[in-house]
Amino acid sequence: MKYDLGSGEYKNWIVSENDFDSLYLGKCESIMCLGNGYLGLRSATEEKYVGETRDMLIAGTFNKFDDEVTELPNAADLTEITIFINGDRFSLLQGNVRDYSRSLNLKNGELTRSFIWTNKDFGDIKFEFKRFVSLNDLHLIGQRVSITPIEKNLDIKIQSGINGQVSNTGAQHFSEGEKRVYDAKYIQYTQKTTESNIDFVLNTVNSFEINSETVKPNSLIVMDRRKVYYNYEMSIEKSSTLVIEKISNVFTSRDKECEGLSYEELKELSLKRIKEESVRGYETLQSESAKAWEEKIWSKCSITINSQNDYEQLAIRFAQYHLVVMTPGHDNRMNIGAKGLSGEGYKGHTFWDTEIFMLPYFIYTDPKVAKSLLEYRYLTLAGARKKAKENGYEGSQFPWESAWLEDGEVTPIWGSADVITGKAEKIWTGFIEIHVTSDVVYGTWHYYNATNDQEFMDTCGYEIIFDCATFWQSRLEWNEEKQIFEITGVIGPDEYKEHVDNNAFTNYTAKWNLDLAMNYYNELKENRRDLFDKLNEKLNLDENFTKWASKVDKVYLPKPNEDNIIPQDDTYLTKEIIDLTKYKNQTNIGSFFKDYNMHQANEIQVSKQADIMVLFLLLEGLFSEEVKKANWEYYEPKTLHDSSLSLSTHCTLANDLGHSELSYELFRKACDIDLGPNMKTSDAGIHSASLGGVWQCIVNGFGGVRMIDGNLRINPCLPKTWNKLELPLHWHGDLLNISITSEELNIVNTTNNNEEIRFIHKGNECKLTNSITIKLA
Amino acid sequence: MKYDLGSGEYKNWIVSENDFDSLYLGKCESIMCLGNGYLGLRSATEEKYVGETRDMLIAGTFNKFDDEVTELPNAADLTEITIFINGDRFSLLQGNVRDYSRSLNLKNGELTRSFIWTNKDFGDIKFEFKRFVSLNDLHLIGQRVSITPIEKNLDIKIQSGINGQVSNTGAQHFSEGEKRVYDAKYIQYTQKTTESNIDFVLNTVNSFEINSETVKPNSLIVMDRRKVYYNYEMSIEKSSTLVIEKISNVFTSRDKECEGLSYEELKELSLKRIKEESVRGYETLQSESAKAWEEKIWSKCSITINSQNDYEQLAIRFAQYHLVVMTPGHDNRMNIGAKGLSGEGYKGHTFWDTEIFMLPYFIYTDPKVAKSLLEYRYLTLAGARKKAKENGYEGSQFPWESAWLEDGEVTPIWGSADVITGKAEKIWTGFIEIHVTSDVVYGTWHYYNATNDQEFMDTCGYEIIFDCATFWQSRLEWNEEKQIFEITGVIGPDEYKEHVDNNAFTNYTAKWNLDLAMNYYNELKENRRDLFDKLNEKLNLDENFTKWASKVDKVYLPKPNEDNIIPQDDTYLTKEIIDLTKYKNQTNIGSFFKDYNMHQANEIQVSKQADIMVLFLLLEGLFSEEVKKANWEYYEPKTLHDSSLSLSTHCTLANDLGHSELSYELFRKACDIDLGPNMKTSDAGIHSASLGGVWQCIVNGFGGVRMIDGNLRINPCLPKTWNKLELPLHWHGDLLNISITSEELNIVNTTNNNEEIRFIHKGNECKLTNSITIKLA
Repeated sequence: MKYDLGSGEYKNWIVSENDFDSLYLGKCESIMCLGNGYLGLRSATEEKYVGETRDMLIAGTFNKFDDEVTELPNAADLTEITIFINGDRFSLLQGNVRDYSRSLNLKNGELTRSFIWTNKDFGDIKFEFKRFVSLNDLHLIGQRVSITPIEKNLDIKIQSGINGQVSNTGAQHFSEGEKRVYDAKYIQYTQKTTESNIDFVLNTVNSFEINSETVKPNSLIVMDRRKVYYNYEMSIEKSSTLVIEKISNVFTSRDKECEGLSYEELKELSLKRIKEESVRGYETLQSESAKAWEEKIWSKCSITINSQNDYEQLAIRFAQYHLVVMTPGHDNRMNIGAKGLSGEGYKGHTFWDTEIFMLPYFIYTDPKVAKSLLEYRYLTLAGARKKAKENGYEGSQFPWESAWLEDGEVTPIWGSADVITGKAEKIWTGFIEIHVTSDVVYGTWHYYNATNDQEFMDTCGYEIIFDCATFWQSRLEWNEEKQIFEITGVIGPDEYKEHVDNNAFTNYTAKWNLDLAMNYYNELKENRRDLFDKLNEKLNLDENFTKWASKVDKVYLPKPNEDNIIPQDDTYLTKEIIDLTKYKNQTNIGSFFKDYNMHQANEIQVSKQADIMVLFLLLEGLFSEEVKKANWEYYEPKTLHDSSLSLSTHCTLANDLGHSELSYELFRKACDIDLGPNMKTSDAGIHSASLGGVWQCIVNGFGGVRMIDGNLRINPCLPKTWNKLELPLHWHGDLLNISITSEELNIVNTTNNNEEIRFIHKGNECKLTNSITIKLA
Repeated sequence: MKYDLGSGEYKNWIVSENDFDSLYLGKCESIMCLGNGYLGLRSATEEKYVGETRDMLIAGTFNKFDDEVTELPNAADLTEITIFINGDRFSLLQGNVRDYSRSLNLKNGELTRSFIWTNKDFGDIKFEFKRFVSLNDLHLIGQRVSITPIEKNLDIKIQSGINGQVSNTGAQHFSEGEKRVYDAKYIQYTQKTTESNIDFVLNTVNSFEINSETVKPNSLIVMDRRKVYYNYEMSIEKSSTLVIEKISNVFTSRDKECEGLSYEELKELSLKRIKEESVRGYETLQSESAKAWEEKIWSKCSITINSQNDYEQLAIRFAQYHLVVMTPGHDNRMNIGAKGLSGEGYKGHTFWDTEIFMLPYFIYTDPKVAKSLLEYRYLTLAGARKKAKENGYEGSQFPWESAWLEDGEVTPIWGSADVITGKAEKIWTGFIEIHVTSDVVYGTWHYYNATNDQEFMDTCGYEIIFDCATFWQSRLEWNEEKQIFEITGVIGPDEYKEHVDNNAFTNYTAKWNLDLAMNYYNELKENRRDLFDKLNEKLNLDENFTKWASKVDKVYLPKPNEDNIIPQDDTYLTKEIIDLTKYKNQTNIGSFFKDYNMHQANEIQVSKQADIMVLFLLLEGLFSEEVKKANWEYYEPKTLHDSSLSLSTHCTLANDLGHSELSYELFRKACDIDLGPNMKTSDAGIHSASLGGVWQCIVNGFGGVRMIDGNLRINPCLPKTWNKLELPLHWHGDLLNISITSEELNIVNTTNNNEEIRFIHKGNECKLTNSITIKLA
């Protein structure tokens, strides 16, 4: 990978590779993925290779294949363009390549690939491929291929159309659909998901220029099973440039804007649109998308890192780029997948990742999107109630993996191989990783406290918080001997410990949820009688309050032992301690499981990821500095960071605890998760949470920004190599511009709609009217 | 392609290629396909390439995906072996290859691929890949890969296991299934078809030797979605040879021998078998398969062509090899697919191809298999009755495309593109190509007359013939004006004419079916009262006979016009005649449809294939020599032979009519259909009927062998370049050895179980006791 290709306007905006290696196709397919929150398009190359994964995923279009769990179906491929030179199929595996470069421009969302290639007696041929997914028109994909034979005249054949033979790693989610060509030019292909009955309509059209003159090559339409394409044949003289523009679009019957349209109307609309769009040409369409990136994103959300190391500026832009691409902010019936829309990993499902790792970015950077993500949780309450009921509980239990609104739990049941028994391991998270319910409550509370969005609370927030408290009180188990309420048989955030009792994170956040609900109950009953009555009727609050109150004070909260260590669960501290050096590295994630199975991991003091540390971050007021420090020293060495959700938490905590260098080191590792040199770990898609985590390292970690009980706290501590950090921060409806150096914290309220903002710096409460500067030294 | 690689024992037994070209993968995948009638395995290479089609099809395991028609599902791939050399994935697209050869040994069923390859600084490496599908044990597949680094020590990584991510051109027929490893060695993968609920259990095991010493490389099991495999790592010193043996098997719950076994028992049985088999090793298992080829096939069915051109001997062996591989003779619930088991083309469906083009081979060469194929038709009568009923007719109407027993009609509805309108063309054959019903009757009658198998007639044959006659009488349409029964709106054998009235082939064979049924009715009523009563009760014969008799003499049979031309249908002769030269060539099959659509083809005197010529062949006694000659002259120039079912008929007719040279030319073209140099036309699988057609050219054509009204007729006329033709011929339960030169016809009855055989030569009836020699000159 190459990070410094950008210069001038594009300095620290370009991610690139300058070697093609077919062993590592997944890396750039994922990290150079294009999209706009509506659709995600993996950057598989125009020509096909063994080992590639061609994915186009449309947010929210979940379908179940057979008895598997629901997933985002891989729509028909629009991007394949097969090029034959003098009868040979063009492939970078053959012949010689030089001046190779593939780059993603994060600023304008355009992907470019160029090189000079030769094979046999073809002489040098210059290729350039460009591609974008429009941020201006969510349905639009543009491609532009230029071919210049430098030394010899060539016969060129192009195959280009729509290929519905793709699947999700073998699972086929679509009926075959209709194939049609209009005006001997526009190709239309329709598909319908087999179980959820969503219509997809895809259109594409190819046009050709030689030396900027439109040409009409010999063409022949071919319809195959699930496939429709044109064969075009032409000759190009040396030094001439052939340009192929392929403009495509995709619509589905699940699109909000298409609600009420019949299948035939959907076909008409999309065909009309492709006709209108394609005549305007690649350049125009691409520049409109670039303008949208500038106006909607970068002019509003840019974070500036003035560092000795340019990579860090690139890394936050990379994270922000993907947070836009992955997030269906246009439709509150959809949420973010653990791999965004960049790959089939985790099937497009939403996890606690959203509330704990991505939501903070949107709360502080683009609160409207944050609200939409939480409204999604509100809209899935029916599924959460179903899950609770099926498990014999009350209230709402959010699913560990969440998909379409009414789906409920969609975690698959079987995972990878147990190296000892030869069987597939059972995936327990869907059954017992129950802390997600508190995490959604936390996200709700976090959003509310940072935005003051009372309307959201009234329509969605209180209901989520109350009904989750009701779940927790029903989930608590009375221990007669100890006279306490326990929560046994769970998985906490650390997924290398299954079936544990009293996971600290789970118990603390459950009690916190009960406390929160009780506070809001009292508050609403006293001050918001109409709303209270409505919610009381719907959620049976009076009766449930009695239950909450009867249990809340007897919830068992694991306390620090004589060494100040909080047991992660009832038995963690009693387990064997082994030398983990071999496994504690980021270049060989998951290597522990080449030697141990889950059963054995359960018997060792080894953690996949941050567990108690997340608790410290979310509810920092509950624990003393000494306890935090002692636990950090104890757990950090035992944490393999085998989850991409781990590093940002440890980075932030390390900075809190004064371990600046380690904090910086963890930040750099967090930046590397997708962007870095590991060429295999992003194969199944980018790590959505880790990209939110990069923002958390910078803003929560080095920036020291935190919401503490409804107050904004800012305790910055920049890495030594940083001169300045500038970032936008939305708070209570105002947009603050924050600027931090090693000497100074400067805050400017650019909106100032509200009353004075109270914020806390190093324990001191401050007031901000228009701007404030605080000396840090 | 190369045809003369075989020498000594293997002279004219080896089909080979000596260039690897990734544009033409389908050619050798299909024509070098391995199998045994139970399973067919396309010969995709161990390493994967873009453009390949990896298929393993198990006869009779039909499944419907979504609302598509049923097809043979592509089972999980057992053959993939990915080889990494010093970390690079081995591919013939990279580096340099020399001494390349891939060959199929038709005698022993073994596929071999060998070459010397080098890339980067690896030095020369010698590779050899061998593979067979056992004819001795229908479930067994063996592979053997040997790698010899000649100049450098190498690090080798092998990925090998079972991959269920394959599909049928995108359609997925299987649930994901179970993955399991036993004894840290045996990999088991199960799949279940989604609609027909057939369990598939696949097992595989890899073993390793270096210089003939068993080695145990570092290994790690990987389970992915629909995929389970081992990664093996080892180092090899230069000049050492690494040998990998991969022994696999596949069982399904549809296997006759597994009837009554539970899923768990199927898993146990197949695992037990793979354990027993794999210890015996590739060499032993392969030689047992080779022995089965010798004992079951070649020692019994060999045809010897002593010709100036060795290609012809190879061609008949190639045809016979594939007729064995494609034919599920082990199970009468199954029949032959139009592409055998060699590809996804025509979905494994059975057409009239069986009775008219492949059945004759089996009737005369392996009558037990012929019987099984006809029993299949008997077992599908329920579906044929359903189809008749659905169409408003009586009796049994055999489906144009036939799959599992009760399926009925399974022809798909939409085909390739109409180049004029841009829409997919509707496939009408399933609705109106109704002559298949007569074709099945013809096959039944042919088998009976050639074998005297009365038991088959009693249990199956009469019922087929009677109930099809009942269909025809109900299908006839009364023309009040002309006072005749017509058959309108059909497709005859010539599929370039849709919705025609009174196709001669259809009308003549329908009337023939009625006559035949009436004769058998009278015969049984008179001589076989018990059987008659049983059939009468079941098929309502008395009432139906009255209907047959009331219509049979008024069936309209198109008569020769003043030029002796029989109109193929009511309007053919009135249509435009155009210059067809451009389209009448075998190198560009179907090129007519690049310029015309079906609607236009309907208005031109152009034929896809033999139509009236087939009628002449089946019912030659109905037409005079002059009529045959005149029609030949008229229709041959208008017949594009765009169907692979066409050439053998025209070849045989040409020989009958004295056009020896043209006959030979057509024979050579027929041999070339799959075996020849066209590298694209076999992509979707071999052309089953054309391989039966090669036998027909030789035996019916040059050998002049025909069944005429229950008598054996032999009128040989060898091509000039042939010295001698020797062939086995089963007749009325005896095995005759026929030997033909330009001077002599010699017949030896090797069995002589029966009374004298009467046969006809040039119109003279002869008698054969032990042997007879007839001078031809």
